[in-house]
Amino acid sequence: MRVAEPRRCDVSVATGFLVNGDGHYRKTYRDLAGLYADAEAFAAILAEKADDVAYEVTSYTPGEKTSDLIMGVTRMEPGKVGREFFLTRGHIHAKGDRPEIYHTLSGRGIMQLESPGGEVRLVEMGPQQVCYVPPFWIHRSVNIGSQDLVMFFAYPADSGQDYGIIERSGGMRVRVMDNGKGGYVAEENPAWRERSPADVEAILGGGEMVA
Amino acid sequence: MRVAEPRRCDVSVATGFLVNGDGHYRKTYRDLAGLYADAEAFAAILAEKADDVAYEVTSYTPGEKTSDLIMGVTRMEPGKVGREFFLTRGHIHAKGDRPEIYHTLSGRGIMQLESPGGEVRLVEMGPQQVCYVPPFWIHRSVNIGSQDLVMFFAYPADSGQDYGIIERSGGMRVRVMDNGKGGYVAEENPAWRERSPADVEAILGGGEMVA
Repeated sequence: MRVAEPRRCDVSVATGFLVNGDGHYRKTYRDLAGLYADAEAFAAILAEKADDVAYEVTSYTPGEKTSDLIMGVTRMEPGKVGREFFLTRGHIHAKGDRPEIYHTLSGRGIMQLESPGGEVRLVEMGPQQVCYVPPFWIHRSVNIGSQDLVMFFAYPADSGQDYGIIERSGGMRVRVMDNGKGGYVAEENPAWRERSPADVEAILGGGEMVA
Repeated sequence: MRVAEPRRCDVSVATGFLVNGDGHYRKTYRDLAGLYADAEAFAAILAEKADDVAYEVTSYTPGEKTSDLIMGVTRMEPGKVGREFFLTRGHIHAKGDRPEIYHTLSGRGIMQLESPGGEVRLVEMGPQQVCYVPPFWIHRSVNIGSQDLVMFFAYPADSGQDYGIIERSGGMRVRVMDNGKGGYVAEENPAWRERSPADVEAILGGGEMVA
């Protein structure tokens, strides 16, 4: 055969799974140690359900070329650590100039973005809302609803993930917190450290500048 | 600004539109002359609604790089020309080794695929079913349901479209017809001409072979 077989995958919105993919990973609450501001509240969650799944990703990876596409579904539990909404670890693409598309299928969330230079964007995501994450943005998702947050995603197959970038700056610049009125509020993370101009250059320098 | 702004687009499943994109094109029935087997039935449709929209695409194109992604929504009317279900023109990517993802949001369709060597695949598509169209497959969608067929799609930004490939072989190899029992049947298109080995090489040759 000279060409690859077409593939049909089915999305189960109710369970938050891509069926007939070839990849699956889970993050438990234990895996998320160090991400949240409120250490006491996090310890209480660990005591209750350290090995429960906090979020999981099912995906299909057809190839590894720049031009190929990985697709999948991410599902995140609802909840809070103290006032802070549940979130994913977050990453920048190892090849920083690769974008990503997130299409919300159910739930209510925030796509939290941070540029290497420290610009912050919070994109509200509800069912059938799609976020285009441009090249070079660190991104994570936050579940601000009372149900699972389920999103379909697609990105270039050679993007890779750099999860350390967030740790190196003391976390992301803001935290998405319950505002006590049924909504959210972004609060500055005092542990956040601005990246040096040299670090910003190192991240942006590899890729093409975009307006 | 050193990085592009994140973009949120909303999908209206009911109207089959991507809202807040930057591209929109429509195909009328008149534009589809020559695609269908039953010339008399097609003439009757033209007499009735030549300038009505048969299908339309709303999209967002952030950039032009191989690694960037175009996304959008395609909406196709339901109906038949004689026994043949409504379809899109179909294309292969001008850069043949670029894949595409189609995620069905509503309706019932077929992703009709044909390899340069003449292999045929029909992938049934219903809500929340996703088709990964691998590199090098000619593809079109067919609406076999009684409602609009609405799909979200994503593909590499430099893919391009070659619509002529289908015309050069006398159409696609099979036609998706009403089987008279509420379903569909694929019937051979007698006008279809096999591509020469040289033509197949020319299409596949530019890209990397895939298993």
